[in-house]
This record gives sequence, C-alpha cells and structure tokens, in this order.
Amino acid sequence: MREFQVQTSRREEMVDVTKQVREAVQAEGVNDGIALVYTPHTTCGIAVNEGYDPAVARDVIEHLHELVPQERRFQHTEGNSDSHIKAILVGCDASLPVVDGAPRLGRWQAVFLCEFDGPRERLVTVTVSR
Amino acid sequence: MREFQVQTSRREEMVDVTKQVREAVQAEGVNDGIALVYTPHTTCGIAVNEGYDPAVARDVIEHLHELVPQERRFQHTEGNSDSHIKAILVGCDASLPVVDGAPRLGRWQAVFLCEFDGPRERLVTVTVSR
Amino acid sequence: MREFQVQTSRREEMVDVTKQVREAVQAEGVNDGIALVYTPHTTCGIAVNEGYDPAVARDVIEHLHELVPQERRFQHTEGNSDSHIKAILVGCDASLPVVDGAPRLGRWQAVFLCEFDGPRERLVTVTVSR
Repeated sequence: MREFQVQTSRREEMVDVTKQVREAVQAEGVNDGIALVYTPHTTCGIAVNEGYDPAVARDVIEHLHELVPQERRFQHTEGNSDSHIKAILVGCDASLPVVDGAPRLGRWQAVFLCEFDGPRERLVTVTVSR
Repeated sequence: MREFQVQTSRREEMVDVTKQVREAVQAEGVNDGIALVYTPHTTCGIAVNEGYDPAVARDVIEHLHELVPQERRFQHTEGNSDSHIKAILVGCDASLPVVDGAPRLGRWQAVFLCEFDGPRERLVTVTVSR
Repeated sequence: MREFQVQTSRREEMVDVTKQVREAVQAEGVNDGIALVYTPHTTCGIAVNEGYDPAVARDVIEHLHELVPQERRFQHTEGNSDSHIKAILVGCDASLPVVDGAPRLGRWQAVFLCEFDGPRERLVTVTVSR
C-alpha cells in the first residue's frame, strides 16, 4: 500500500490527485489488476470525473452544496453533517483497472479528492491487487 | 468469500457491521490486498462513514429520506422505488485496503449496512483479493 | 481485462449489461476473486440494482433528473454538467464478488450502464483479480 497527503484550501473543493495516484500505482509494480484509491476520513471522498475543464468540479461542488446544505438543521452538533452525507454520496473509495502497470483511466477522467470539510490535510492510500 | 446476516429493525437505518467485516477479513487470511464488502440486495447499501456519534447516521438517513421521499409518485408499484434509488446513491459495495490481515479503516470510520426497505434480514459478503 | 461496447439510445437511461459482464468474467477464468466493472467516461456510470421490473430503472432516471436538472444554470458551458454530477453520484465503477468463475449477483440484481448524456457508444471494461 502506498499513501500520500493532500492539503486542501477551502471547505468544499475537488483536488485533482491523478498524478499522485499514477505514481503510486506504478510504484506498486503490478502489471494487471485492480487499484483501490481510498481515503480513511469521513468528511471527504474520492471521485473519478472530468479533469479538463475546472468548471465541472465547481459545478459538482456547488450542486452538492445545494442538495445537502450546511445550514440545514442536523442532530450531529459539529456543524458538518452535510460533509458526512456528501462523503457517503461520493464514496471514500474508487477502483481503477490497471493495465501494463498503470491505471487505465479514460481520456477525460481524472481522480479527485473531494473535500467537504476543509481546509485540512487529507490522506489517500493506493492498494493494487493482481 | 465469507458472509454474515444482519437483522434490521426499521424501514430506514444504518447498522454498524464493522466487527463482522473485521472478523471476515481476518478469517480470509490474506495479508495485503483489497476487501470487497458487498450486499446482494437492491434496496439496501454499504457505506463507510463515522461510527462514533450515532447522530451522524440519523442525519444521513433523514436527509436521504428528504432527497428521495417515499411518498413521491413512482411508476414501480411496490412502494419502494425510493429504497432502490437510495441504494444506487449509496452503492451496494465498498472496497477497503487490507494491511497485515486487517481492514485499514480510518480512526473514525465504520462500515454500515444501510437499510432502506426494512425491517428485513440482509446478507453481507466479504471477499479478499491479494 | 475484457471490454465491450454499449450503444445507448436516449439522453438518460439505464441499460442492462449483466449478460456481457457475466461473459467477460467467465472469459477471465478466475475462480474466486473480485470483478471490477468500469466505464472510462465522465457522463455515464455503472450501477447494480433491480433488473426485473423496468419501472425501477425509469424511476431512478426520472428522480435523478429531478435532483440534478439539466436546466439549472451551470458554469461548464457544454450543457451537460448535470450528467457529470449524476455520474459522480452513481460512480463509474462497481465491484462484484466472483465465486466459481461467475459474478455472485443477488437474485434481483442486474448490472447497468447508466447513460446521462446520450445517445452515445460507451465502453465498459471488466477486470478480475484473485
């Protein structure tokens, strides 16, 4: 298992971690298999989506904020129930096919750490099975 | 593959199954790899999120109920289209990194069976690949 | 890794690809492990849910359209930000347990390619690890 840190800079944002994921998968040295990208936190998630136009990530963050507003009345008293709910909707894991030692992403796909309760330092782990 | 049953007690609730998942992974005897937690039903899901304050799970269930109300008019006539939709949003699978024979969860992470059409007896399977 | 194409016929729909997934897993010849069903696009997803009554899939598509309307004002100028958001909610991957060389789906479960920006030709890949 490999891991890397991501420093986020806002409460809610998507940070492109494709480069770090690619390096971690290659370092594992598995030719063909499955790569699991995982974050061990409960208020952020891992998503795979378009990395070319940054407006897409902004639209995602803004619309999720509308679907699960921070301001809604929740029972959990830390003020971040919305972050937990968004993390569940996005999921804290993403699995990628590995071909010839590298993650086989689509042409427009990037891997994102989705921050829903930042800014914070987040951990991402990459595990490859053959 | 290992499996265990979960008896749910309400129509919608999150049941912490971390202990059963941990035991299943350890029983598989794989040192390093990926554990797939899976439920073969179509109206419940598997989620990884905070297990410490039970208010978080209640907030999740209540907010999902608001996003996908049971009372909305649906075409499927069994009265549980909302359950199917929530199951798709949450997903029926979660993959966990396995390190030293155990699932490497984050400090606050727990694994939940998310019931959206209970009370019922649900099956959860755990598969580990290396 | 195996792959197959899916021709979708509407902007938003769920296409049952269980048969193709089953064939791909069997072709891989792995007895026990994990099968990753993956789509390398950014405006469609992979979901596992009920395949028996087609009304369920229609309810899912219609409700997702309500939660993330195409008509909402977005920053991304291609008119398909809703498709990207739905793809993130559903996810572009699904992992299935493999037992005796076949995906161990539940009795009512089917695997779907969820089209959110069609009609298009879509690629689905299947990777099995042991």
